[in-house]
Amino acid sequence: MTISVAVSGASGYAGGEILRLLAAHPDVQIRTVTAHSNAGQPLIEHQPHLRSLAHLTLQDTTPETLAGHDVVFLALPHGQSGQYTDALVDTPLVIDAGADHRLTSPDAWDAFYGGAFHEPWTYGVPELLVTGGRKQRENLLGATRIAAPGCNASTVSLSLVPGVAAGVIDAADIVTVLAVGPSGAGKSLKTNLLASEILGSANPYAVGGTHRHIPEIQQALTDAGATGRIGISFTPVLVPMSRGILATSTAPIAAGATDADIRAAWEDAYGDETFVQLLPAGQFPRTADVLGANTALIGLAIDRAANRVVVVTAVDNLVKGTAGAAIQSMNIALGLPEATGLSVNGVAP
Amino acid sequence: MTISVAVSGASGYAGGEILRLLAAHPDVQIRTVTAHSNAGQPLIEHQPHLRSLAHLTLQDTTPETLAGHDVVFLALPHGQSGQYTDALVDTPLVIDAGADHRLTSPDAWDAFYGGAFHEPWTYGVPELLVTGGRKQRENLLGATRIAAPGCNASTVSLSLVPGVAAGVIDAADIVTVLAVGPSGAGKSLKTNLLASEILGSANPYAVGGTHRHIPEIQQALTDAGATGRIGISFTPVLVPMSRGILATSTAPIAAGATDADIRAAWEDAYGDETFVQLLPAGQFPRTADVLGANTALIGLAIDRAANRVVVVTAVDNLVKGTAGAAIQSMNIALGLPEATGLSVNGVAP
Amino acid sequence: MTISVAVSGASGYAGGEILRLLAAHPDVQIRTVTAHSNAGQPLIEHQPHLRSLAHLTLQDTTPETLAGHDVVFLALPHGQSGQYTDALVDTPLVIDAGADHRLTSPDAWDAFYGGAFHEPWTYGVPELLVTGGRKQRENLLGATRIAAPGCNASTVSLSLVPGVAAGVIDAADIVTVLAVGPSGAGKSLKTNLLASEILGSANPYAVGGTHRHIPEIQQALTDAGATGRIGISFTPVLVPMSRGILATSTAPIAAGATDADIRAAWEDAYGDETFVQLLPAGQFPRTADVLGANTALIGLAIDRAANRVVVVTAVDNLVKGTAGAAIQSMNIALGLPEATGLSVNGVAP
Amino acid sequence: MTISVAVSGASGYAGGEILRLLAAHPDVQIRTVTAHSNAGQPLIEHQPHLRSLAHLTLQDTTPETLAGHDVVFLALPHGQSGQYTDALVDTPLVIDAGADHRLTSPDAWDAFYGGAFHEPWTYGVPELLVTGGRKQRENLLGATRIAAPGCNASTVSLSLVPGVAAGVIDAADIVTVLAVGPSGAGKSLKTNLLASEILGSANPYAVGGTHRHIPEIQQALTDAGATGRIGISFTPVLVPMSRGILATSTAPIAAGATDADIRAAWEDAYGDETFVQLLPAGQFPRTADVLGANTALIGLAIDRAANRVVVVTAVDNLVKGTAGAAIQSMNIALGLPEATGLSVNGVAP
Repeated sequence: MTISVAVSGASGYAGGEILRLLAAHPDVQIRTVTAHSNAGQPLIEHQPHLRSLAHLTLQDTTPETLAGHDVVFLALPHGQSGQYTDALVDTPLVIDAGADHRLTSPDAWDAFYGGAFHEPWTYGVPELLVTGGRKQRENLLGATRIAAPGCNASTVSLSLVPGVAAGVIDAADIVTVLAVGPSGAGKSLKTNLLASEILGSANPYAVGGTHRHIPEIQQALTDAGATGRIGISFTPVLVPMSRGILATSTAPIAAGATDADIRAAWEDAYGDETFVQLLPAGQFPRTADVLGANTALIGLAIDRAANRVVVVTAVDNLVKGTAGAAIQSMNIALGLPEATGLSVNGVAP
Repeated sequence: MTISVAVSGASGYAGGEILRLLAAHPDVQIRTVTAHSNAGQPLIEHQPHLRSLAHLTLQDTTPETLAGHDVVFLALPHGQSGQYTDALVDTPLVIDAGADHRLTSPDAWDAFYGGAFHEPWTYGVPELLVTGGRKQRENLLGATRIAAPGCNASTVSLSLVPGVAAGVIDAADIVTVLAVGPSGAGKSLKTNLLASEILGSANPYAVGGTHRHIPEIQQALTDAGATGRIGISFTPVLVPMSRGILATSTAPIAAGATDADIRAAWEDAYGDETFVQLLPAGQFPRTADVLGANTALIGLAIDRAANRVVVVTAVDNLVKGTAGAAIQSMNIALGLPEATGLSVNGVAP
Repeated sequence: MTISVAVSGASGYAGGEILRLLAAHPDVQIRTVTAHSNAGQPLIEHQPHLRSLAHLTLQDTTPETLAGHDVVFLALPHGQSGQYTDALVDTPLVIDAGADHRLTSPDAWDAFYGGAFHEPWTYGVPELLVTGGRKQRENLLGATRIAAPGCNASTVSLSLVPGVAAGVIDAADIVTVLAVGPSGAGKSLKTNLLASEILGSANPYAVGGTHRHIPEIQQALTDAGATGRIGISFTPVLVPMSRGILATSTAPIAAGATDADIRAAWEDAYGDETFVQLLPAGQFPRTADVLGANTALIGLAIDRAANRVVVVTAVDNLVKGTAGAAIQSMNIALGLPEATGLSVNGVAP
Repeated sequence: MTISVAVSGASGYAGGEILRLLAAHPDVQIRTVTAHSNAGQPLIEHQPHLRSLAHLTLQDTTPETLAGHDVVFLALPHGQSGQYTDALVDTPLVIDAGADHRLTSPDAWDAFYGGAFHEPWTYGVPELLVTGGRKQRENLLGATRIAAPGCNASTVSLSLVPGVAAGVIDAADIVTVLAVGPSGAGKSLKTNLLASEILGSANPYAVGGTHRHIPEIQQALTDAGATGRIGISFTPVLVPMSRGILATSTAPIAAGATDADIRAAWEDAYGDETFVQLLPAGQFPRTADVLGANTALIGLAIDRAANRVVVVTAVDNLVKGTAGAAIQSMNIALGLPEATGLSVNGVAP
């Protein structure tokens, strides 16, 4: 089986990572790579680490260049995916790495993004629990339109959904603080993303409830069975590492939940998973351990003095947070073995 | 006025920073520097950045070498300060950069440190509000024994005390997550402090309520008037910068507190301070902006959706967190202008 | 075909990288992992990024634990490999990642290492030209004892051997300066390898002709046909990245060599290679582009004003510099496709 | 004495560092700060680390805003200083941190910069030996127009001038490789300066003899007495630290020069200097040791096997390389104590 693939936004960081993973996928042929301002240039000039793809030239991103493939990956700025939807109506599988098709609530879209609302696609985080004791994986079987997750959102959702689904934590007063690398912000020419601004410094942004990934987490918690108000204090902090998210997420312990109840919630949720792993009690993950891997590592502490569960989760924002999630979801949608082309081992030190 | 000074632990990071600041202090003569295993060696071999002190040789840390100075700084591992107390009975001012004399509660000491309890000394964070509408500064006037603060503790205390003192936040459910540089852990030969382990990675430690700075924060909040349970979920994360703490601290908004009430609490507390500055609404600090400076920069957000105040504070752990706090406290105790020898400007980028 | 393998030094950085690559090798079964002081502990505690090997326990490094495998990798401190040689006499293939079997000259060994001289093994850099128009690859076919190269040495040798073999540069006055990450120094508890010492700083070491990789480069140049004195000014500089070597190597242009002659030397040497690639004129490599990859990227400049060829080469010290070279050599020795289990694409950004 | 000062380019990195140092200068009043596109905004928004200058507003950079001060600092992109020269004819002292007035040779200017040639101003590196046994310091006494040096150029010139002046090294075949932080490239929105491109990577640029600082070094060596061809192979490498230059510079040992001759050349040149220090034999500097300081630290090795002197020099590119050199030169020109407002101690770790 050879799957022909097109990747748009191929000169950016998300597009580059999709290509890096696809290049190691035995069933895929990368036929088309597209970009906007860089169209006409060799891919290798913009992705000099992708030596095996040195033969590819960036084409213009148009409905015509993207049409005619088995799978199309859209790695475009928010708001741009919609214009290709109609043109790709005959494409068997389209996966959007942008935000356009993630939210089911037009109100949430309005409040955090604005502009035209797009229909929600199947959410690409297979390991997430959804109501009815099922996982999102089942929804992805045979899916034809998939929305890859926001990297920060999926990290926090994977951290907390087991506790919410099991009723052992209270979703009304979640606090999460994330140490994140700047690659999540894309290859954007902004002063605050310059190396001189980030080296040797920890820089917060989107403080106070404005980050666009907040409604995406609320949606995942609702899908997992949360009822009542979902309160999330969400603060991302840029730190000097190119990749990685270390999310420290806490929530109040639900009345009556024992330590065994709590730990069991996460063990039950992820005990059989390859790419989401709960560490033994007392151990906590580092982002270096998942660099380049499609793995989320989760450490769990129960702080009775503070009356909070503390979940520390490490992911590579470009892999499990974006491109790996997209390809894992593709594998499921197409009926391939789920781990094809993906590594569980990180590159460390 | 020339103050003769001895600094113990002079080959370590805290001792080195005390020396760097004292070298720029116009009223101080650094007469004695001491160490343990490095005694007998030139200071410059261990602190090659302190070019102006190249003439000094490390002596052995003993009661005899430390005695006979106007001021003695102890920068020793926890538990070692006590043995010098008796010998320094005639020293006009002793400042301990270690933890031995910070806590007033023997129970808290037992729970988080253990071993012999030492009498509490005056706490060296001048800007902290204490009950009665006063600040800790007043306690430091004429003090003869001073405990410099824990760097993480003072950062969180400065972040939250104004809101607690004003009654606009609730101390029962504080959550704080800190991005910290490894210099706070000292010049210790531990695998987890190797460059290869920390470069490119975010690494949590002391997760789940075990960090020794927790009771120190609780004490500061109590001193500021907190009543009832004080709950603190405290998670430090090592990030790849040599210095700096960026603490993101949140607490529930007290019932009835308006946005104006909240902002006024911090404005009133710090409006007249040189070294603790509240940024304008919507602005948040970066650790690079306080590198080498004795400054704490505070950004404040009010997140009504999450019902929490979010306080993001940047300090240099070695300056405002340790050595700068010690010298600022020394200035106050001796009646010198408080800012002598200290910089409010950071070294950036 | 399933090859049973043992890896000693499995809790260190070189051992860990050998394991990371072997875990992705389709023909290998990792049967035994050994260590010294960490024997008895789960491998995953020391290599938390190797999730697929979580079932392995570190055994003691002894002749008995290492015997009985098809291939044994030795990743031990210098001077320790020799003691296992006799015991492994029946092992079909032994690959030493240490220095013990690299040098053919007892005098060079004495001058730079000292202690007992060990017999030289086949040198594990397949792409190196050797006299007679051949490459080192031919020597590796069917080899039973292989010495993996020093990471800095092989980087510089790959940089300059084509020019020396073609007679277009003069080996008498080579100057090379290398920016290197600290993982090359191993998981050693030394003050100069602490994160606080390396973050935000560039730190030289072994300045002035003392680095142990110098004779290894001289040997490779001699093997490639260099005659007369070989002079190498060699300066490594630790920089704040966990992995990577960027070697800037220069040598005088040989009399009469045209620009076309010079470029042709490198094109001819590496035009057919997968893992050693010459970039187009005017392009130069970055270490990020080879992170995790078995690739050496080479940029070549001809500076007529300085009368020097400048060769800038990027490798991942743990892959192409050590573990990848070892496995590529294993593949050749065993008759497997040379690239099995190795990636040509780096992990960037 | 209060010196009124204007600083143009005040929102950039060089301008910011000039301001940081001037803010600590007891004899200076910073009266005017100017910028182009950021004119009208508070300085503190662009230099949030300069807390003591929070009262200043950026004005437009025009002849009018700059006129009427005792000293004007120009920190503008290359080619822009010239337009202010005429307007500042009455300003007692103008110091240009740009390149416009550094070179004395119109041919060199044409070859490396192009565009209109500007008259050379007094070169602002006081410790440089010039012919006649004098130092550049003497030329700076009473100077009214000063060209601050290029950071890389002055680092290499300080490294090699003593050996050239003493005739113990040969300037015909110099090789220098520099590890540099990205702040030297300014606050420019270029993809290759993004944090994601620089974190975890070593990236060469201007390879092969194209860097604009080459003629500036040749000029300094000529001024120090070099005769005949001056050949310089010059390669800068961006590494992940915000500030700092570590230059490794080598040159052939002159025939007959003894080790004592060689070491004496540097000892004699710098033995009495405060801000340029030769380390003891066998010791080499790190950039962290000069962070924020106006100090150049020099380590010297004599490699007889390679027949080369190796000089490793660490500077802070923004201080000794630019802003510190400018202010030290100002102090000399105005007859102030040379070290006023400058620190010899670095901020480490």
